[in-house]
Amino acid sequence: MEDKEKIARENILRESEDVDGKTVKGYDFNEGINYEKIIDRYATTGAGATNLAKAIEIIKEARKENAFTYLGYTSNMVTGGLRDIFRYLAEHKLIDVIVTTAGGIEEDIIKCLGEFKIGEFNLEGKELRDKGINRAGNILIPNSRYCRFEDFIIPILEKINKNQKETKEVITPSKLIHLLGKEIDNKESIYYWAQKNNIPVFCPAITDGSLGDMIYFFKNKNPEFKLDVSDDIVEMNNSTIGKEKTAMIILGGGVIKHHICNANMFRNGADYAVYVNTAQEFDGSDAGAKPDEAVSWGKITKDAKTVKVSADASIVFPLIVAKCFAK
Amino acid sequence: MEDKEKIARENILRESEDVDGKTVKGYDFNEGINYEKIIDRYATTGAGATNLAKAIEIIKEARKENAFTYLGYTSNMVTGGLRDIFRYLAEHKLIDVIVTTAGGIEEDIIKCLGEFKIGEFNLEGKELRDKGINRAGNILIPNSRYCRFEDFIIPILEKINKNQKETKEVITPSKLIHLLGKEIDNKESIYYWAQKNNIPVFCPAITDGSLGDMIYFFKNKNPEFKLDVSDDIVEMNNSTIGKEKTAMIILGGGVIKHHICNANMFRNGADYAVYVNTAQEFDGSDAGAKPDEAVSWGKITKDAKTVKVSADASIVFPLIVAKCFAK
Amino acid sequence: MEDKEKIARENILRESEDVDGKTVKGYDFNEGINYEKIIDRYATTGAGATNLAKAIEIIKEARKENAFTYLGYTSNMVTGGLRDIFRYLAEHKLIDVIVTTAGGIEEDIIKCLGEFKIGEFNLEGKELRDKGINRAGNILIPNSRYCRFEDFIIPILEKINKNQKETKEVITPSKLIHLLGKEIDNKESIYYWAQKNNIPVFCPAITDGSLGDMIYFFKNKNPEFKLDVSDDIVEMNNSTIGKEKTAMIILGGGVIKHHICNANMFRNGADYAVYVNTAQEFDGSDAGAKPDEAVSWGKITKDAKTVKVSADASIVFPLIVAKCFAK
Amino acid sequence: MEDKEKIARENILRESEDVDGKTVKGYDFNEGINYEKIIDRYATTGAGATNLAKAIEIIKEARKENAFTYLGYTSNMVTGGLRDIFRYLAEHKLIDVIVTTAGGIEEDIIKCLGEFKIGEFNLEGKELRDKGINRAGNILIPNSRYCRFEDFIIPILEKINKNQKETKEVITPSKLIHLLGKEIDNKESIYYWAQKNNIPVFCPAITDGSLGDMIYFFKNKNPEFKLDVSDDIVEMNNSTIGKEKTAMIILGGGVIKHHICNANMFRNGADYAVYVNTAQEFDGSDAGAKPDEAVSWGKITKDAKTVKVSADASIVFPLIVAKCFAK
Repeated sequence: MEDKEKIARENILRESEDVDGKTVKGYDFNEGINYEKIIDRYATTGAGATNLAKAIEIIKEARKENAFTYLGYTSNMVTGGLRDIFRYLAEHKLIDVIVTTAGGIEEDIIKCLGEFKIGEFNLEGKELRDKGINRAGNILIPNSRYCRFEDFIIPILEKINKNQKETKEVITPSKLIHLLGKEIDNKESIYYWAQKNNIPVFCPAITDGSLGDMIYFFKNKNPEFKLDVSDDIVEMNNSTIGKEKTAMIILGGGVIKHHICNANMFRNGADYAVYVNTAQEFDGSDAGAKPDEAVSWGKITKDAKTVKVSADASIVFPLIVAKCFAK
Repeated sequence: MEDKEKIARENILRESEDVDGKTVKGYDFNEGINYEKIIDRYATTGAGATNLAKAIEIIKEARKENAFTYLGYTSNMVTGGLRDIFRYLAEHKLIDVIVTTAGGIEEDIIKCLGEFKIGEFNLEGKELRDKGINRAGNILIPNSRYCRFEDFIIPILEKINKNQKETKEVITPSKLIHLLGKEIDNKESIYYWAQKNNIPVFCPAITDGSLGDMIYFFKNKNPEFKLDVSDDIVEMNNSTIGKEKTAMIILGGGVIKHHICNANMFRNGADYAVYVNTAQEFDGSDAGAKPDEAVSWGKITKDAKTVKVSADASIVFPLIVAKCFAK
Repeated sequence: MEDKEKIARENILRESEDVDGKTVKGYDFNEGINYEKIIDRYATTGAGATNLAKAIEIIKEARKENAFTYLGYTSNMVTGGLRDIFRYLAEHKLIDVIVTTAGGIEEDIIKCLGEFKIGEFNLEGKELRDKGINRAGNILIPNSRYCRFEDFIIPILEKINKNQKETKEVITPSKLIHLLGKEIDNKESIYYWAQKNNIPVFCPAITDGSLGDMIYFFKNKNPEFKLDVSDDIVEMNNSTIGKEKTAMIILGGGVIKHHICNANMFRNGADYAVYVNTAQEFDGSDAGAKPDEAVSWGKITKDAKTVKVSADASIVFPLIVAKCFAK
Repeated sequence: MEDKEKIARENILRESEDVDGKTVKGYDFNEGINYEKIIDRYATTGAGATNLAKAIEIIKEARKENAFTYLGYTSNMVTGGLRDIFRYLAEHKLIDVIVTTAGGIEEDIIKCLGEFKIGEFNLEGKELRDKGINRAGNILIPNSRYCRFEDFIIPILEKINKNQKETKEVITPSKLIHLLGKEIDNKESIYYWAQKNNIPVFCPAITDGSLGDMIYFFKNKNPEFKLDVSDDIVEMNNSTIGKEKTAMIILGGGVIKHHICNANMFRNGADYAVYVNTAQEFDGSDAGAKPDEAVSWGKITKDAKTVKVSADASIVFPLIVAKCFAK
């Protein structure tokens, strides 16, 4: 037994060097409720809180350095309440380029045509279908909203198509979005403000949603209508080149994450990168890839400031905006 | 104390009804190693194993019913070894439509031009960048592969562009992919077989990858080149209508998952749906949405057979194919 | 084509009923930064934000109803800054029973003996081991802390053992923790306040940590020392019976989650349940089980108010405490 | 534009070094269905498949090196069909020490007293409670099973208690489990074989489950009964010291993962470590910690062979056993 104890003591109770760094310390509620300080304390709370604090620091620095800022988000966030926060950022021109999916465009416009409602994740699909109510997570969207969207968009497509025939110029997703923002003419819309403030909005998978459904219906009568994606990729990639510094704020995964990163490869990498998503890297998906994977591709520079916050953007992004963008 | 015991006994040791169903039982290795039976035993193993068994049952039934089958997968799976399994499915025409992302197209072609290598998830981005080696999960791709891809694709784009000028016909992603499959002329390629067997391949975000990079370079000299996505959405959506039964096998999330589901809404829902991915529903993302959410939209019929397998497709899809498709 | 369009229109543009519920609406930063309102807006933001808002509502109601409240948390949260928040809750007697793991006890005491530091998740294990620095997530703990813990605890164990020999009474984990809290005599300690305020602390796996290491060393010289867990399970289970209402706030998974739920089965279920963790249900683990699974066992009552917040507690628990407990 | 193209070309089409390593290649189903080869191909499939292949290699080597092997698993796996595989490993003495939770013990015994059934994850809690049917993931357990467990265990506890009074020796969890295995006398039981083959089974949280419920009821009449956990921690930790090599196979997280790792710290680290679980590291939990975190603590040696497989053990463990243990 003595030998065992000796071995055990050597291994369990071995000497150690000291270590520098911030001392772990959480918020002391005896100081009262001070949200500014509560959030500041995330820095020394460890785990995801520390990464959230890092995201805030990075975005603050990017803003101080006047970095050209890309904001990416997925459809579900526009279906939800982050839409109003994206609108704020566009309204005050606090970001320079937006990248989103088809749903990320159409849900913003559709919300101007009818409200979305909070429901539950576990509502039964069958029952909802019988009522014509679509579920997106815990949000409910009566199908009438999409009918109204048709009424809104078909005249716009007709106008575009007429112009296309006359000028032989084929429209791009970014120009279509610009037009939608203009026509909706509603200060609650992200894309109203984007077009007003000349913030380009790229949507590389524009047909993958209700927008595609409408184009489908439109083309049944107007098969000659075309929608070109090649001019947008030129514009998107060129937007990164020549900027002194660029920053990427990417909420969610998939095409929007890859698209912003890929474009920043053209400039040899973004200088600041904040990812907020719930995907994990083990399956090799781009969605779950950490910033350091992007460094290998030159999508992020070798000495960039980066962080991934593994969190639901609906919870953390309002806090980030409060700390970094709002005043 | 007596009262407490009485209350406790009532709650802990209460009577119960019996319950029907298969008895939980795992594989008995005393029977020796019989992989067919090991996988059959997943059905009564519970947890994810039972869902995997259900996926196998659903796909088997879909095949027996001659369901028109959509296969969707993300880029990383083509970067990895599932590519060879997708090629097998295309070669033997075991699926009817493919939907993937830009990387899901180009990595298949690029692999014909140079090998990809197994690495590690934690290799340092800086060092890799200095060597020009790109990391995708635990797979390494020397950048020379993309240079060779340029050499391969530019002549094809030139040919297309020449034709475009002559005929005024604007190419679509599905036609471009068809051409790439034809030109690569390599039996290891998924898209070689897809074009040979007339399996349409849709890629709604075709510019989001090296394909987009090449189009960018090509357009610097040929700005008149266009790439239309509107004809593909018509074709994709129409492909679902009028089929007696449809099945969806969707590996991964994002645009490929949504695209297949959305198209099946045009027919009032798919009859069979198997999702394999690692996304979760709590953040409201479409990636993490379970089949029942799609029922509310009419993307899946109310009495469809569906399952979500929360797993890395690299592990489970080979087993699914062994059980359902190969012989 | 006409037929197809007809089918498509019927399915895509079908009529719908209206739906009740709160309108989706995010925070409007044009109102300035008002954290109280930002957090209130989570309710109508959808996704995880809505679940976090629900958690806040549930705990508020539980407090209004004077529900007897169980707080459970895992070791890593005490290693991190949530420890200071748990201390606040114990100091002001805002919770009634604590359940944690061995690390959840010892790290609180050890922090009184030396600071923990913020590090990074990806620091290399080899290098840290050479320096004697232990990593827990992104927190670093020089091993000297554990040496000091030995100096602190051995005299206490000697005292206990002496008493054990004299009285034949075998100590339990809850009594040991009470003693540690008393002896550490430090107002920064959770367990100092727990013993002061007579909040029982249960630790069903008390030997699984440095506490177990110390007991190991102590028993090498004092093999007669015993530690009984049977009295604690009686006390824990009885604590639930006869209370008018009980509430469970469970941060993290594993034994602490199961232990609180299991005890509440003795009373036929808790009336309020808030889970905060990052585990998922698909693998059948208790950690990932949603509240409704606990309803089947009688661990939660059939009409309880419950929610699971899929989030990192380090981020959301400070907000919950700000809204529900602090003033 | 020319400048932009130059910059773009430099960054996108830069030169690269070659890279060594296995070429990515998936299984070729044109070779027919050969499961041995399908699983071998995981090594070059990338993502999680490659990690699974690595796990198989590590365990094979550990077995060749006669490493002393710890197997850990959580309760849900015994509830499910992996129980029969653990039984096989114990029956043929292919592992040396088992660590599990209370449910991991009792569910094995209870299955000898009545069958468990496959259900669905989304069965409603209320309805199940009314029928007395407990749900664990997608497995259903009528409550009668627990009533039968009481009938089985109370006489055993009485015998133990009688002996305790006579000899003054307090029983430990490992001895209690040994006795349960002996008394159940059923070749389908893991613990029947464990006691027969002298495989120690440690359960540091023995009271956290139905076992605790039964001890609760027993102690209402026999309050003098004690259950000591201190002798087990001595035995567990000592078991690691002096072994030439040790291996850890840990399925799931929480106390069982930490317990095996912590004990191996006493010998300065395990030589082989395979983790299979679905937890992630970002929240700083021990459950989600990767092997390299354990290296910093000396729980795993600096040059150990280690891997984490992010997967549902119900799917991958049967494959691991087929490749590494069965014949």
